[in-house]
Amino acid sequence: MDPAAFRRHGHELVDWIADYLEHPERYPVLSRNTPGDIVRALPPQAPEDPETFGAILADLERVLVPGLTHWNHPGFFAYFAITASAPGILAEFLTAALNQQAMLWRTSPATTELEEVALGWLRQLMGLPDTFEGVIYDTASVATLHALSAARESGIPGARTTGLAGRDLPRYRVYCSEQAHSSVDKAVIAIGLGHESLRRVPTDDVFRLVPAALTRAIAEDRAAGVVPLSVVATIGTTSTSSVDPLPAIADICQREGMWLHVDAAYGGAAALLPTHRHILEGVAHADSLVVNPHKWLFTPLDLSAFYCRRMDVLRAAFALMPDYLATPEAGHARNLMDSGIPLGRRFRALKLWMVMRTFGASGLRAHIARHIELAQTFAGWVDARSDFTRVAPVPFSVVCFRWEPARLLDGLTEAERRRASDTLNSTLLDAVNRSGEVFLSHTKLNDRFVIRLAIGHERTTLKHVARAWTLLQEEAERIAARSGSRS
Amino acid sequence: MDPAAFRRHGHELVDWIADYLEHPERYPVLSRNTPGDIVRALPPQAPEDPETFGAILADLERVLVPGLTHWNHPGFFAYFAITASAPGILAEFLTAALNQQAMLWRTSPATTELEEVALGWLRQLMGLPDTFEGVIYDTASVATLHALSAARESGIPGARTTGLAGRDLPRYRVYCSEQAHSSVDKAVIAIGLGHESLRRVPTDDVFRLVPAALTRAIAEDRAAGVVPLSVVATIGTTSTSSVDPLPAIADICQREGMWLHVDAAYGGAAALLPTHRHILEGVAHADSLVVNPHKWLFTPLDLSAFYCRRMDVLRAAFALMPDYLATPEAGHARNLMDSGIPLGRRFRALKLWMVMRTFGASGLRAHIARHIELAQTFAGWVDARSDFTRVAPVPFSVVCFRWEPARLLDGLTEAERRRASDTLNSTLLDAVNRSGEVFLSHTKLNDRFVIRLAIGHERTTLKHVARAWTLLQEEAERIAARSGSRS
Repeated sequence: MDPAAFRRHGHELVDWIADYLEHPERYPVLSRNTPGDIVRALPPQAPEDPETFGAILADLERVLVPGLTHWNHPGFFAYFAITASAPGILAEFLTAALNQQAMLWRTSPATTELEEVALGWLRQLMGLPDTFEGVIYDTASVATLHALSAARESGIPGARTTGLAGRDLPRYRVYCSEQAHSSVDKAVIAIGLGHESLRRVPTDDVFRLVPAALTRAIAEDRAAGVVPLSVVATIGTTSTSSVDPLPAIADICQREGMWLHVDAAYGGAAALLPTHRHILEGVAHADSLVVNPHKWLFTPLDLSAFYCRRMDVLRAAFALMPDYLATPEAGHARNLMDSGIPLGRRFRALKLWMVMRTFGASGLRAHIARHIELAQTFAGWVDARSDFTRVAPVPFSVVCFRWEPARLLDGLTEAERRRASDTLNSTLLDAVNRSGEVFLSHTKLNDRFVIRLAIGHERTTLKHVARAWTLLQEEAERIAARSGSRS
Repeated sequence: MDPAAFRRHGHELVDWIADYLEHPERYPVLSRNTPGDIVRALPPQAPEDPETFGAILADLERVLVPGLTHWNHPGFFAYFAITASAPGILAEFLTAALNQQAMLWRTSPATTELEEVALGWLRQLMGLPDTFEGVIYDTASVATLHALSAARESGIPGARTTGLAGRDLPRYRVYCSEQAHSSVDKAVIAIGLGHESLRRVPTDDVFRLVPAALTRAIAEDRAAGVVPLSVVATIGTTSTSSVDPLPAIADICQREGMWLHVDAAYGGAAALLPTHRHILEGVAHADSLVVNPHKWLFTPLDLSAFYCRRMDVLRAAFALMPDYLATPEAGHARNLMDSGIPLGRRFRALKLWMVMRTFGASGLRAHIARHIELAQTFAGWVDARSDFTRVAPVPFSVVCFRWEPARLLDGLTEAERRRASDTLNSTLLDAVNRSGEVFLSHTKLNDRFVIRLAIGHERTTLKHVARAWTLLQEEAERIAARSGSRS
């Protein structure tokens, strides 16, 4: 495809994407495909001869679009709702065309320095001290892997050089709450500490890590000869968006000499609001923090911002300079490859920079505040209905609730009631998601099935949230009617 | 930016990018920025209010473009030359707009299944047996990290659960050649084996791992109680693109029960050619292989294809299912999150699929064959000049050479000669790169400074390669003239 054809097809594609963004609601949010549909619809071999852009676009519409779950749909309320905003999409288009590979400063001064600028802007917007140096990774999972690698480097002598096996070392422990993300599990596995090195500390009745329980766990471990290495505190847990008490955890980490990593992948964005700045109180004593602009800052996947107060430790863990990458700038310019495992590095900063400029700080704050307000509104509707129960506070834009229809559950034993109620909620969730208008997800809290509504898309309005609530009520009535007629 | 504005700015951007792709040679390949230029040119804080797309585009041209090193320039001959081809760029634009997050099958059936389809096509084109299951990561560094994590899971009982520290374990060893990539170093550090666990085996006079040396190293280690875990063989090393003898290495790995990982990040693409298929001879006995379509398969950064004959081992190392990600499809659909560390996962397969369809297998082969032929032509020019010396064979599209002007070096002691010659070559490389017309990089071989010319851009033609050669000769004459007048 020569540049002239690129120009022609590029214009076609802009119109296709603009139509898509204008009318996201023409597609069901959750794909109705069944596993294997796409594999069966496409040839098993690459074509020998070139195909036209028209043929590819036709297959996109015929085969791939039905297999999309529309994360860019305003009725997407599952997991954490995210947004590929228009400036972010345009930035990614540029990123692909420029094809920068910023392993070294000299291989892309623009990527290297815009990463510093964009992460500096975000740091200020969040109120993070400028003692935190930033670097971009793809995902929070990889950021947390690097945080715990730095904790290992800091806490285990000779970790980089000699490793962990075949040495006279004790066991080590990493702590997080029962509600922390599975990426912490994967990180301790990856870096060789083993899954058992992760100790999940109990949470209180609103799903926040209990500092006294952490203190007890550390004391127990020390008594057993296990060395505490790190705590991962979460600002906005995945299930309920609960906020761990950072000041108390930071005190414990300082006292115990442990690396404190803050997983603010979702919640960190709320720190842009003066009303929510307090969620990061105590962060000045943290060693590292991750926040994902691809979650709640309107940036297309993937862009995870990792901030570290001791980036020298991370560099000590990973920096190395093979002959073929030595450059004259090594002494006085930052080479991003020194900050971790991946050598190849896209121009990810561009999209964050373009998003921050296009929205402005005021625009980012307005959207985040609006999402929080919508969640409060939805929570109010849940609270006003006697047959629905909200099961967690709503510090941000996630609402966790259950349908508890007394008429269907009264008179059952406790065990029957739990089982019946879980089935009802799961059935309700499936029914609502089958509508194609909204997509909600679920979690388990206290071993009970819980429906989650997460608000985070730029174009989600009161109308979409109200529609979700209407569908929940209508489907609940329908299920109740069916259950009633059977019983 | 609403969809109407997106449409308008999208069309502007298509024209900007098309102009850029039509006239890449208007910019110097290697940026002439000095460190700090971009940081100083941009405001230290995010704007409070929204800014226009026009203002951003103006800053792109004024501030960022001078800070780009143009990887998409046909005079880019450094490291491994790569290409963001037109279909790849358009695919990335779509990927950003669709914003798929394929952690689970249900969160993006299209991403999940197109990854299977596209990697299946590539597997066939390379002649890999279909016993290899594929998964996409961002970079080869991360692919190799996963390969060695699987080797650890396979070779160290309890690695996932209990980890490596505080147990009665021996030391372990991973082997690669002296010419293997630094990503192997980072991987052994990351997974807790420690840098000392990596043993670099000597290479022969053309930079290929010596199997007998590997056998000796393994025997020595076993005698010392160190347990051999894995070998990383390289098909196309970074410095010279040398090819390790895979059949002999595979035999050793089978005999010793070691995980064989093949780093074909660059060279693997050449296996598309019938003339080069032999480079993967023996691969059926390998456990895993990485090839980077973002290197020599015209795909924008980042897309690294990881193939594994024992993906169950990798899944055993990393798969875990938190409550909030449980889905009804878990039993009969593949959830990509189970294949490794990152949870977030872009729709990367789309660009590979669109590239393979747009070029067709024949088009991909033609470009790769042409690059190899251009490299042979350049090597012929080097060989024909008595004052230039080629220092390695050219199995693919990388040529390593030195300038050895007898007039300036004769009469020096061996030590003086080495020092003077390294300085001359480094001076020559800088002079050529300052032209702005080409960008070459360097390496060290046998402790000598070596200039490298790597061909890999879709639009690189004989004209560009010839221009590089002319510049090398002209600058060499200029340097010789200056040196002569000083002496």
